[in-house]
Amino acid sequence: MEADNTQKENTQIKNNPPEKTNSPDNVIFIGSKPLVNYIRSVVLQFKKPNSTQVTIKSRGKFISKAVDIAEVARRKYLEQEGVKISEIKINSEEFEKDNRKINVSTMDITLSK
Amino acid sequence: MEADNTQKENTQIKNNPPEKTNSPDNVIFIGSKPLVNYIRSVVLQFKKPNSTQVTIKSRGKFISKAVDIAEVARRKYLEQEGVKISEIKINSEEFEKDNRKINVSTMDITLSK
Repeated sequence: MEADNTQKENTQIKNNPPEKTNSPDNVIFIGSKPLVNYIRSVVLQFKKPNSTQVTIKSRGKFISKAVDIAEVARRKYLEQEGVKISEIKINSEEFEKDNRKINVSTMDITLSK
Repeated sequence: MEADNTQKENTQIKNNPPEKTNSPDNVIFIGSKPLVNYIRSVVLQFKKPNSTQVTIKSRGKFISKAVDIAEVARRKYLEQEGVKISEIKINSEEFEKDNRKINVSTMDITLSK
């Protein structure tokens, strides 16, 4: 179930994921695209007028990547504009398959100026 | 440099790392051991008298694993004792090699009761 779900997530990201379409612009879901794509999304979002907050969402193995994205965006592009990491939340999502519970960790990193 | 350093870190962890020896008991560094070893360390630390806080430190690719460890420890073993995630900090460490700067992301998760 965990593997299936990751596969599904990757496919959705490639085909412009429904999560992304239904979510506000300032929420970025991390998947299997190159690191630079997500960094660019974060930076571009902060360039928009009245944009003061971006949330980077990740799950499972993509959590390390999400931290790299937040750190590169902050250090290289956003520090001088006063953008800081304002909140980090971790949690677990639970799935059920064949009466077995499977958990995946999640992380939300919020950058604010 | 990044690879060298990871190698060094893994070796240190296997041979009872100097970081661990020099650090207080309530700081746990995440490396390449099985997940369950680290979960056990966190849980045991909280069983000690007067132990109210544990910090889980990780770098690079071990960050996802650190989040899993914190979440499993919290949900399965510590939630009923009132242990919660009290602070999460992310940062970057910089190395230099051949006049090239290499960054690695770091994360500290603090659990408190």
